[in-house]
Formats: sequence, C-alpha cells, structure tokens
Amino acid sequence: MNSIKAFVFDVYGTLFDVHSVKEKCEEFFPEKGAQISQDWRKKQIEYSNLRQLMGNYETFSTVTRDALRYAIKKNQGERSEQIEKELMDAYLKLTHYPETESVLSQLSDKTLAIFSNGSHDMLDPLVHQSGLTNLFDFVISIDEIKQYKPTPASYYHVLKTLNVKREEVLFMSSNGWDISGAKNFGLQTAWINRNDLPVEELNLIPDAIYTDLNGILEWNS
Amino acid sequence: MNSIKAFVFDVYGTLFDVHSVKEKCEEFFPEKGAQISQDWRKKQIEYSNLRQLMGNYETFSTVTRDALRYAIKKNQGERSEQIEKELMDAYLKLTHYPETESVLSQLSDKTLAIFSNGSHDMLDPLVHQSGLTNLFDFVISIDEIKQYKPTPASYYHVLKTLNVKREEVLFMSSNGWDISGAKNFGLQTAWINRNDLPVEELNLIPDAIYTDLNGILEWNS
Repeated sequence: MNSIKAFVFDVYGTLFDVHSVKEKCEEFFPEKGAQISQDWRKKQIEYSNLRQLMGNYETFSTVTRDALRYAIKKNQGERSEQIEKELMDAYLKLTHYPETESVLSQLSDKTLAIFSNGSHDMLDPLVHQSGLTNLFDFVISIDEIKQYKPTPASYYHVLKTLNVKREEVLFMSSNGWDISGAKNFGLQTAWINRNDLPVEELNLIPDAIYTDLNGILEWNS
Repeated sequence: MNSIKAFVFDVYGTLFDVHSVKEKCEEFFPEKGAQISQDWRKKQIEYSNLRQLMGNYETFSTVTRDALRYAIKKNQGERSEQIEKELMDAYLKLTHYPETESVLSQLSDKTLAIFSNGSHDMLDPLVHQSGLTNLFDFVISIDEIKQYKPTPASYYHVLKTLNVKREEVLFMSSNGWDISGAKNFGLQTAWINRNDLPVEELNLIPDAIYTDLNGILEWNS
C-alpha cells in the first residue's frame, strides 16, 4: 500500500451522485422520474460501450443526450428542447457524496486526479460548481484520446498523463465494470460499492472494497 | 430488396425466446425467477461487451455461466452445482418463436444462416433439439474468430464465411445493439422489435422494422 503515488477517481456514481437528476426528471415527467433517470444512466453506459465496440466515437455529452432521448421515448414522455436542455444542465450540477471533500483533503500531499468517460464540456463545469477544483491536480477525460473505459488504452492514458507506473495508481470507482477494466489493465483498485452489489464475475477481484470513500484513507501513508 | 442472397439470423431473443428459462429459474428460486432470469440476460450481454472491450476473451458459455452466478448472488439465491447445471442446460433447450419454422421454410431457396455470439457448444445442441437444423445452411459463431458482436470484425466474419457482399446480406435481430452494429458495418438490417421498444439513438436506423419474423418475407424475391 505504501507505493501509491496517485489517487485516481471515477466521477459519475463515485464522486457525484448520478441519481440526483431523478428529482429533475420527476419534475418534468411526474411519476416517471425514477424510471427515466434509471433508463438514462443505463443507456448512457450502454451507448458508450457500443460506440467503442463499433468504432464509432462520439463524445460523452452526445452519448448522454442520446441516452436521454431514448429514455424519454421508452417511457412515453414528451421531449422538448427546453426539457432536454434543463436535464442536460442537471448533469453539470450533480451533488457530490457527503464524504468526498473530507477524504480528498486528507490526501492532499498525493497526486489527486479525476478520470472519466465524461468529456471536458461536462466535467469542467461539474467540478467547478462543486467547489472541489482546488483539491484535484488533474481532470483527465478519455475524450483526449477518444477511447472509452474499460479499454486498456483508456487506463494507459492515466499513466501517461500522470507519469506514473501501474502499481503506483490507486483507482476508485463505484462501477463494477470500471473497476474490472482498471484491474484488467493492472492498476490497484478500490471498489466503492455504494449499492451493496456482488463482485462482478469477470475473474478480476478488486484489491479493496469499501462502502464509501472513507475506506481509501488506509492507503494513505 | 432484390439483391439479398443471404438471410442471416441472430439467435437469442430473435429465433429463440431467452425468457423461456424464466420458469426453470422460478422452479429453483420461487418468486425470484423473473428477476434472476432478467439479470442473467442483462449480465450475459454486459459481460460479452466488457470482455471484448478489455481484450479478455472467454467463450459465451463461460460468460453465460458467470452471468448466472452473478444474477443468483445479486438476488440472494443459493447456488449449487446441480442448479447451475440445470439452468445452463435450459439454455440448450430454449423455445423458438412460433413463426420461425414457417418463415424459414418460405425462404429455403436462399442462403440461410445463424450468426451468434454463442459458442458452438451452446448453439449446436440448441439448433439440433429445435428441429430447425435442416433449414439452415450455416451456423456461424463469433467464437470462430473470438470477436464479439457488435464489433465490425464480427460481422465481417459473416461475409467471409458466406462469400457474399455487405449489401447482399439481410441481417435479423431483436436486439437493438446488434442491429446497430450490423448497420454500422453496412449490412441490410431488419429489426425484429418484439418488445415494442424505440429505435436506439445511435444514428443507425434499421432498414426495416417488424414485430415478428413474418415481416421479412417481403425481402424474398
């Protein structure tokens, strides 16, 4: 554990609560908010996977907008430019999890980085409004190389940007698929298992599992 | 429409009803059968995508077994070797959709092929027990090249195997992601939209959309 030089964080679901858009969805689509919000997130991940597999890249903001359109249609909602704009804006104002600031502050002598499938047009305003900007040394987007997680190429981009070795990175994500991808590439991994889910059955066991970010402090030395 | 030489069919959800395993799940896990069966299918698709993205190939039978293990754990079921074996065997005995045989019979002067992410240890017994064997000229598995759909390489394997051009293939699938992948590669596509879902928001519109396989007969000439 002593070799960790860089703490690298996924964003959506890990530092920021994606389902905090649920209320906004509910406002526009009464009684359908939870389902639309869930479908939106599911399709967002699916579309980034599919575009990577098909070799047909679009930025995460395009993918997120397309996923929203699908989710609204699937739930027989009525889309308008205004609704779409306000819901996309909600993605720029996600709430961060309560322990985030305190944990990051205690790691301030290490390199701290964000590493996300999100493009900078989504990440930069989000981090800025959260008040966490000064805590991070790097905000890294896969859009810089146009290779979505969980491809090995995406995680390699972290090493290049931070100028560190695989075993010097502790990567945190709440997403099982993201932890699997990072472990597959050879990073140290801490799965923030916020929803009490089983470990993915991919023969890639996380190095640590915590219920929230506080657990990672034991890697600080 | 006159240039179609080969009718190529996806298997799971297209020719065969995947949720016919639901009853078997319900037998072993009372009141959880529907949820386990749904999670199983969802994880099966996710794991094949993830393994392709990570460059960490395992056959679809391994992926299917792993997905089952996850689905049982997630729903707090108790797994045993016996239960696992019987549920995996259920995948070899799926029911085909009622119109399948009649539609295939009417296309018998064309090249008819199956093209699936399934490996031959799953596909061959399934097709054999269904009584449809004689109707197909080819059973093509992505395992022959170890590139899962929806990668372009997977669909290219169809062209090579059948010795046809892109525009000479009509590809049928009930899975939106599979139709998107085939269209992205340049095949003609007929989406069998059995569940009345919206078109995927991937800028890849299917050439035709039908509620079941009967619709494709208008491509026969």
